[in-house]
Amino acid sequence: MKLESLQPTGSFKVRGFFAAALTLEPGQLSRGLMTVSAGNAALACAYVARELGVGCRVVMFDTAPKLKAEGVRSLGAQVMPMPREVLYEWMRTRGWEQEPETFIHPYADEKVMSGHATMVPEILDDCPQVERVLVPVGGGGLVCGIADGFAALSLQARVVGVQSEGYPLWTRALEAGGPVSLVPDTIADGTAAPFDALMFERLQERVHEWVTVPEGDVRAAVRALATDLKVIGEGAGALTYAAMTGEGHAQHTVAVLSGGNIDPARLSELISG
Amino acid sequence: MKLESLQPTGSFKVRGFFAAALTLEPGQLSRGLMTVSAGNAALACAYVARELGVGCRVVMFDTAPKLKAEGVRSLGAQVMPMPREVLYEWMRTRGWEQEPETFIHPYADEKVMSGHATMVPEILDDCPQVERVLVPVGGGGLVCGIADGFAALSLQARVVGVQSEGYPLWTRALEAGGPVSLVPDTIADGTAAPFDALMFERLQERVHEWVTVPEGDVRAAVRALATDLKVIGEGAGALTYAAMTGEGHAQHTVAVLSGGNIDPARLSELISG
Repeated sequence: MKLESLQPTGSFKVRGFFAAALTLEPGQLSRGLMTVSAGNAALACAYVARELGVGCRVVMFDTAPKLKAEGVRSLGAQVMPMPREVLYEWMRTRGWEQEPETFIHPYADEKVMSGHATMVPEILDDCPQVERVLVPVGGGGLVCGIADGFAALSLQARVVGVQSEGYPLWTRALEAGGPVSLVPDTIADGTAAPFDALMFERLQERVHEWVTVPEGDVRAAVRALATDLKVIGEGAGALTYAAMTGEGHAQHTVAVLSGGNIDPARLSELISG
Repeated sequence: MKLESLQPTGSFKVRGFFAAALTLEPGQLSRGLMTVSAGNAALACAYVARELGVGCRVVMFDTAPKLKAEGVRSLGAQVMPMPREVLYEWMRTRGWEQEPETFIHPYADEKVMSGHATMVPEILDDCPQVERVLVPVGGGGLVCGIADGFAALSLQARVVGVQSEGYPLWTRALEAGGPVSLVPDTIADGTAAPFDALMFERLQERVHEWVTVPEGDVRAAVRALATDLKVIGEGAGALTYAAMTGEGHAQHTVAVLSGGNIDPARLSELISG
């Protein structure tokens, strides 16, 4: 397991946001940062803005877990809540272009993805013989960054994209050969990103294999992570552990636990079983 | 935080039991292993015996958390449950001398303590400037091992022993200047070891400072570890985080999270707050 839950803000997203923010021109950075997020990108953007001493506003689903929205505010950023369809439309029409801040796209951004690729040398340090990497897929930035990281080192690890049956956006899109629209019905709220044409193309090229995990297995995996492995995984984070458990013994396989931001009430409920 | 919760069997105890078992004569090892334990030493002993291919029996309190007793059985070892006072008497009279297995004392054993000292170079790798180490204290083997580890490297880190107000055995014994007997009333079940004259002497020499944490703070720390730090600490494991939180910002301080073996029902209850 690669425990990104232990990163500042509790997910891998700080990697990408630091990579993107630290390469901005001073004039761009001083305008402050903006992103759009199911939660973890918002937390990372707020954290990075605070560390770099600039302002931050984030667009979030109005259904985002309370823990994530409150976390963003406690980092000194403003939340702009939007209903799901309004938010998707805002993204489709590039609503950020009307705003004063510098926008960092939470996944379809080269620098964000290259920031996520910094995970690859760490994975190789811990598991030099790695043959397969299981990665949860929402917008696709993490899995593409990891695939690019291995490719940059001319390594052949098999990159496996993992989704919940409660929101199998990319496997459906791949079957359909193009855009699909689904309503998420999963505790893996971190994977609830919409279809994106650019990311669809990248995912087709970079992901070697897809696994779709039954929603019940995701819930069981959150519990097993806590009781057996002693770590906290949010729904999206637990996806890969659920996938690996389904496979039986998985040698030289690394499962990326992408984050641990889960509302305490839900966590408590899942642990009590 | 030094996350010993991520060790096999979910606590630091495997360090000491491997160190002790691997230095036994073949004839001693083949008789199988025995220990006495509040839970974590039992799990470690069972794990080490299984890894080395020998049998194992462990004496445990009949009130040991179900998770720990079941864990021991699932590792192929036998549990010999005893009421608290019977168990203490068994220890006082060295009951293990009547048994066929080779007994490894869970804390008052040089090799077990030197095994725990292997944590010190790891702490130095992660935090070369460490000035203080907070360590939960039950029998005292962990804190003495860590103190000896620093001393062996001629380093001056301040070693702080942490206990719950629900079982402040050693601070009471130090005040009294000798043996005391208390009934544990704490979720830090891993610290419920009895007074031991040899360990009393060692602790007096090695522990620079003692902190006693209110029981309510221990419970709050289990929750905060899960929701803020995304890690699972059992009661004993959460003691040092509770102590550190009480101190405010603690630079160059390492808190040892000794283990994460907590019953799911209790964990769920503590997280729900």
